[in-house]
Formats: sequence, structure tokens, C-alpha cells
Amino acid sequence: MSEALRVTVWNEFRHERKSEAVKAVYPDGIHATIAAALGEHGFEVRTATLDEPEHGLTSEVLEATDVLIWWGHVAHGEVQDEIVERVQQRVLAGMGLVVLHSGHFSKIFKRLMGTTCDLKWREGNDRELIWVVAPGHPIAEGLGEMFMLEHEEMYGEHFDIPPPETLVFVSWFSGGEVFRSGCCYTRGAGKIFYFRPGHETLPTYHNPQVQRVIANGVRWAAPTVIERVFGNTPPHVPTEG
Amino acid sequence: MSEALRVTVWNEFRHERKSEAVKAVYPDGIHATIAAALGEHGFEVRTATLDEPEHGLTSEVLEATDVLIWWGHVAHGEVQDEIVERVQQRVLAGMGLVVLHSGHFSKIFKRLMGTTCDLKWREGNDRELIWVVAPGHPIAEGLGEMFMLEHEEMYGEHFDIPPPETLVFVSWFSGGEVFRSGCCYTRGAGKIFYFRPGHETLPTYHNPQVQRVIANGVRWAAPTVIERVFGNTPPHVPTEG
Amino acid sequence: MSEALRVTVWNEFRHERKSEAVKAVYPDGIHATIAAALGEHGFEVRTATLDEPEHGLTSEVLEATDVLIWWGHVAHGEVQDEIVERVQQRVLAGMGLVVLHSGHFSKIFKRLMGTTCDLKWREGNDRELIWVVAPGHPIAEGLGEMFMLEHEEMYGEHFDIPPPETLVFVSWFSGGEVFRSGCCYTRGAGKIFYFRPGHETLPTYHNPQVQRVIANGVRWAAPTVIERVFGNTPPHVPTEG
Amino acid sequence: MSEALRVTVWNEFRHERKSEAVKAVYPDGIHATIAAALGEHGFEVRTATLDEPEHGLTSEVLEATDVLIWWGHVAHGEVQDEIVERVQQRVLAGMGLVVLHSGHFSKIFKRLMGTTCDLKWREGNDRELIWVVAPGHPIAEGLGEMFMLEHEEMYGEHFDIPPPETLVFVSWFSGGEVFRSGCCYTRGAGKIFYFRPGHETLPTYHNPQVQRVIANGVRWAAPTVIERVFGNTPPHVPTEG
Repeated sequence: MSEALRVTVWNEFRHERKSEAVKAVYPDGIHATIAAALGEHGFEVRTATLDEPEHGLTSEVLEATDVLIWWGHVAHGEVQDEIVERVQQRVLAGMGLVVLHSGHFSKIFKRLMGTTCDLKWREGNDRELIWVVAPGHPIAEGLGEMFMLEHEEMYGEHFDIPPPETLVFVSWFSGGEVFRSGCCYTRGAGKIFYFRPGHETLPTYHNPQVQRVIANGVRWAAPTVIERVFGNTPPHVPTEG
Repeated sequence: MSEALRVTVWNEFRHERKSEAVKAVYPDGIHATIAAALGEHGFEVRTATLDEPEHGLTSEVLEATDVLIWWGHVAHGEVQDEIVERVQQRVLAGMGLVVLHSGHFSKIFKRLMGTTCDLKWREGNDRELIWVVAPGHPIAEGLGEMFMLEHEEMYGEHFDIPPPETLVFVSWFSGGEVFRSGCCYTRGAGKIFYFRPGHETLPTYHNPQVQRVIANGVRWAAPTVIERVFGNTPPHVPTEG
Repeated sequence: MSEALRVTVWNEFRHERKSEAVKAVYPDGIHATIAAALGEHGFEVRTATLDEPEHGLTSEVLEATDVLIWWGHVAHGEVQDEIVERVQQRVLAGMGLVVLHSGHFSKIFKRLMGTTCDLKWREGNDRELIWVVAPGHPIAEGLGEMFMLEHEEMYGEHFDIPPPETLVFVSWFSGGEVFRSGCCYTRGAGKIFYFRPGHETLPTYHNPQVQRVIANGVRWAAPTVIERVFGNTPPHVPTEG
Repeated sequence: MSEALRVTVWNEFRHERKSEAVKAVYPDGIHATIAAALGEHGFEVRTATLDEPEHGLTSEVLEATDVLIWWGHVAHGEVQDEIVERVQQRVLAGMGLVVLHSGHFSKIFKRLMGTTCDLKWREGNDRELIWVVAPGHPIAEGLGEMFMLEHEEMYGEHFDIPPPETLVFVSWFSGGEVFRSGCCYTRGAGKIFYFRPGHETLPTYHNPQVQRVIANGVRWAAPTVIERVFGNTPPHVPTEG
């Protein structure tokens, strides 16, 4: 526990290189902004992006990762199935996974959920209020009862996910929608946290409360077991019945 | 299953006798309006109110009740502990319980939850949108993805309840709040459904969608076992270990 | 509700044609035994098997199926991905799915769970006691507190599944293992029930209590919505925020 | 996080003063054995017992307690309701609670659960195997897939508790029973862990794996918020609706 948790921030990193509007908000990419924030929260952070070899997610990188953060949007289909499989196996072995915003449609999240992960959305000018519904949960630590994002893309129900094992946040949007915006799951020995905000044209990941939620999510998702200790072969010989 | 479910609608029945504004909306009491609606849904319905002997909840009545509906507000403290205990034992034995609106602060609900059941509230002029977050759940049957109550009292998070075993509805209020407004629990062999809407001065219980939710809640909460079949004494003699 | 639920019993149907030992127990196949039992419970039942065209699971069949039952073991890999995809989409749209025994390793179950679904096992001579841990749940209806299978294959923890939304049964095995043997999930609008017993060489599916559990599972998993009513496009135009 | 967690171990402390058999196993009381073990795990530990003034649970003690451990058996009825109320309020405000063995029938546990908390039991000569069903959970950290207690009192299902929010352990008993023996709950801002083993005549609390589970339980139940930060009064003035 005295060692710093090792976090890898994965970003598709396409918007920021093509759109001046996005580049103006995240000049070095969304991953760089999140990585800097997590560094200040005391984690050992590296980044990886889609266009690196093996998307930057080699076996060596994953074996040195306690918690993986995932942001993707327009290029989910370009993520190779082999890498998705590798990430899934690592999650089942205990690596934490924090999925952000449009990552709801990533191959890895859909594979771990088993559903379409579809939702409503609108790029408008909504205000988002994020309410805490699990006040004692580690992911809500240090937040008040609610925090506000003055402008965000709307995501609305029905969000086609399995019922969260723990629901931490519910969002209110000025246009009339609600959304389960902080959702915890376990899969194998791994913990998964989905957190809603983070449209690429908006400064959401510069917001200190958003950064705190992601940092809290990393701590919550940190592995207790980083390899499957349970060989599933029978430990007992047959008995007399 | 061919027999009609037997429902008892319990109401505090104080507002309707003291306030002209409430009487105008529910001339025979909230219980009468709900009972009539449930009768049309095919249930065998009776009512009971606070000022009847034993609050109308004699052992005979409870033994002939499959699902009990509870509305109370200003007189929670007048409900005798002995009757609360009787209702709790009946729920644990399998009777369904549907708790409405300000019933969140009733003795029976707090006792079954173990928490304060506190929440935010405002008698204003809010609009309420009730979103379905569990589309395949029996309690959401026949509803669309959302329904609206043009005017309702606001209830806001944090709602101090145990995390619902199933969350069916989330409400949006025009003032900026959200609320987990359809919550399912089991206690013993009994099923409990909390449903938020129903301020006494508003015609909420005349709304066909609200009536449908209550009817769906009754069907969902109907007992599969109406007495504890499991005597908790060891069925096995000690073995050789 | 007055119409009979339409059940399709799917079976790999390989063991029964190759092994005299299995044929002796299930001369017409496991599916035939289960189908006959469900017919007696009042359902409208058909069967489908692996070696039929499209594995017997054409779009027409699935559209006429309320609940699909799945038994497979040695030929999971032969089930075409296209059919698995079709079944998954139908489950998400509301069709119930009851997965039996070695179906834990089927493509459809693993895809809906997102985990390995691995477990311990032993073909020995274990006795299995199946304890009810959710006495008010519809799937436990009509059972006592426990029922026994004198001989069954052992399945042991850790069973690598997401935490069940509702755990109905826990099995005890004479060799020293336990197993979460009745597990409920929702995915999209669909309900999924996994039920452990049913080794092919043993008369488990002739057991009236096992038959009752499967029938209860069919009733619980029956759809409330059989098509996605929720088009996930925003119903509101942007507001002034 | 750098400060040690403050643990109070509460024990009824009656068996140990009346029974030579119990005194032989726990000469200074069960609380002393548990306190010593938790001290070695790095916590700041104090103890409290039934016959102290206010049962040793003054407001000052509770305000200086992050996690309370509870063992009781023959004198549940002697615990004053006022103290139970005080402990409940502190749990709802964020204090962790670890309830051991026969504490299942304590006033505080029943009040937080809302059920009878009844179970089967047998003082025989059972062997208990405790299986991990949530391998990535912090409470399972450092354990293998199963650990054994050569002799323990049997507790069997049905255990009349609300469905655990997380089920960590399931016990197997040689006499044929199973039991949900590691159960996690949240109530308000507080976390509650029930752990089954610990009959007073047996050396269970000297077992290093049992001690580790209790220490893990303390870390898991540690508060993130130790006072209700959420004043439940509406933060918004009425809007135009």
C-alpha cells in the first residue's frame, strides 16, 4: 500500500489532432490533462493512445498497470479485438478499469457489460448537476452533496447497462433528462467504474471535482489480487458421498 | 393464481378531513381514490385508516391481505408500535408492502429500512419527469420510457435509504433535483416497493400512469409464500464431522 | 397473461446420440424430458437442437419464443457466432433465458456475463443439497427450505460470474464445496436465470423439484416488454440551459 | 489516511467470566484477543463491554471510533435502547460496524437490517469450510480460495437478512448446511460487515485467517464521511416550473 498505484490513461487521441476547437481545450490530448491531474493526486501515471503500436497496451504495459482509464469516441471500431481480449483478461485478473464518457460504446466496456450500452445524447447547451446518491462510498469522498458542470453534453436514460452493483451518482440535465452517471461493477477479480462527464469540446477534465472523482475511482478500483489465485480444478478427491 | 389478489389500502386520512383544498381533490380520501383504481385493475380491495380501531389493521385484516398500501404524512407518530410490529411480522412472512410518497417517514418503512429515510423536499411548483431505468421490470410494464406529472412536490437526494435491490424509476424535477423514486426491497419473505409521487393537494392518484405503477407494484409484491415455511431449527443431527 | 408462455428448449443433443449411458437416462434427449415437464406446467413448448439448420433458432422461432432454455456441453464452439448474436439481441429485447448446468460455458452465457464463467467441477459421486436463500422469490415458490439430489456432478466456487442480482439457491456438496446454484440477472429488457444441476448421465431432469425450479424460472424470466420500446434519441430539443 | 484507524471492540463479556471452558480459551475475554490481533494489524484499538457504564459506549468513545466491532450472545436484551440508538446514529453518520457470530441477534444488527436475523444453529462438532465468492473484494485480500475451521458451531440457512449488497464468503458445514458468512451492507454513510465464525468455546479468534478477515473488514468499513455532510433542506428556491 505504500507504493504508488500505477495508472495508465488510454485515449483515442483523434479529436485533439483534427479539431481546433478540441485542441484549444486539450492541446496535448485529453490523456495528458487527466494524467497531469492524477499525478498531482499521487499516482504513478503513464499514457497510451490508439495510434501507438498495439495501441500502447502491450502485455508489458498492462502487467505494470494497476488501473486503466479509457476515453474513446469516434474510433472504437479501430481498436483491435486482440487487444480488447488482452485488456479483458487483465481486468478479470484484477486490474481496475475506469471508463469515461463516450467510452460507454467502447468494445471493452460492451464486452464486460454484455449489453448494448446505448443511451440518449444531445450536444446542446445543457447544464449538468451531478448528485451523490451513495454518500459513504469511497468514490464520493471529498465531494459535497452535488456538483455542477455549467455546460456538458447530455446523456439520458435509458442507459442500457446491467444494473450497477453500486450507483454513486445520478445526473440532472436542464433539458429534462436524468442519467446514472457513476456506476460500479466487478468482473472476475477486477473492478470497473463508469463515469459519465467529459465531452471533448468542453473543459470538463480541467474541473477539480471531476479530477477528484477520477482519482477516487482509481483508488476504489485498485486491485486486491492482481492474478487469478484460484486455479479452478477440484481441490478434493471424490468422497464416499 | 386464479384468485384475485387481496389489497388493503391504508391511509392516515387526516388532511382530507381538515383541509378544503385536499378534500376538493380527494373527497372520500386518498385511500378511496387508490382503492377504486385498483379495483378496476382487478384486485379485491379494502381500505383501512388511522382512526379506526387498531388503525383498521387487525390480525384478521392482515391475514386476509396479500399486499398492503401505505400513505401517511402528519400523524406517523400516532401509529401504535404494536401495530407496526404486527405489520412488520406480516411483511417478513410474505405480505407485500407498497409505500407511497410521505410514507417514507412512516414507522413501518423506517423500521424495515434501518435508516432515517430522510430526504429533501419543497412544496413549490415543480414539474416531475419520471424516467424508467429498468425497462424489463414488471413494475415498469405498460409505461413508456418516461411519464410526466405537471405539478408535484419535489423530493430530492440524498434519500437516506439502503441501496435499492432494484431501482425502477428516477425522477427529474424542474428545480434541479433528482430522486430515486421507484425502489424495490425484500425483507424476509416479503417484498417492498417505495413509489415517490402523491402530494395530498395534487391530483396525482387520479393519474392513470400513477395508478398503473401502483397496480404493477401490487402484482410484483404479491406473496409467493404467505407464512414462514422455514422453521429455523437444525434439520440434521450432528455428524462425525 | 391469459395466453400460455411460449418456451423453446434448446439442447446440444450430442451426448444422447453417442453414449448409451446418457441415452438410457434421456432416450429422446434432455430437451424432450424438459419439454414434457414444462408442458405439464402449462407452457406452450417447442424444442431446438444444434444440428438443425440455424441450430433450430431461426428469427421466426426466436420471435415466437418468450423464454429460451439452454443446455450445452461438448460443442459450445460449434454454435455459430451469428446465432449467438441473434439470441443476445433477442434477450436484450426482452426474451427470457434459462441457462442450465454446463451451459455456464456456452457462448451466449459468457457473452451476456462478460466473464470467464469458469468453475471447479468433479464427476464423482457427490450428494448435492440445494438450499433456498431467497424464500420469497418466485423461483423458490413451492419448494421447501432445501431439496436433495442424491447423485450429481460437483460444481464449486469460485464461479467466475458477475455478482448475481438475486441469489436464490446455494448448493452444498458432500466433497466439501459450495456453489451459487440459482442466479438471476437482467440484461437490457431481458431476464436471465442460471440453474446449476443437470449432469447428462444422471436423472436430474426427471426430478419433480428440478422441473418445478425450471418452470418457476420460466415464469420469472417471462418478458414484460418483448421489443425495445425506447428509441434512444433525445426527446427534447435543447433548452436555454 | 496516514493516521491509524481507531477501532473499538465491544464484547458482552459474560461467558468468559462464568464458564471455565470459555475462560480457558479467552482468559481476558474475546474482546482482548480480537483487540490484540487488530493492534498487530496496525490499528489503534480500545475495548468496551456490557457491564461498563453506558456499556463503554459513551458519545465520546463513539466519536473517537472509526469502526466498531460487536460480539454478543446471551445478554442482547440488556443492551439499553438508548445506547443502541446512539450506535445506530453513529453508523448512519459513517462509522463502520463489524458484527461477529451471535451478534446476528443483537439489537443494533436487527435494527439496521429490519428483519428477524434468525438462522439455524447446532453446537455439534462440525467442520466449517469458508469459501471466497468475491475474490477481488478487499475483505478477501490475502486469503486463498478457502480456509477451514476444524471445529465450529453450525449456522445454517435460511439466514433472515436482507440480501447482502456484496456476498464475500459462503460457508460449508460437514452436517450438510451452507451459510452466507460474509455479508456487506451500507446504511446511511456507514458500512456494515457481518462475519459468521466465533463460537465462545472454540479458539476461532486466535486463528490468523479469521483475524485477517476482521482486519480487512475494518479497513473496508472505515468511514469516508464521518458526519452527515448533507443537510436535507432544499438548496433551490422554487422555480417557475
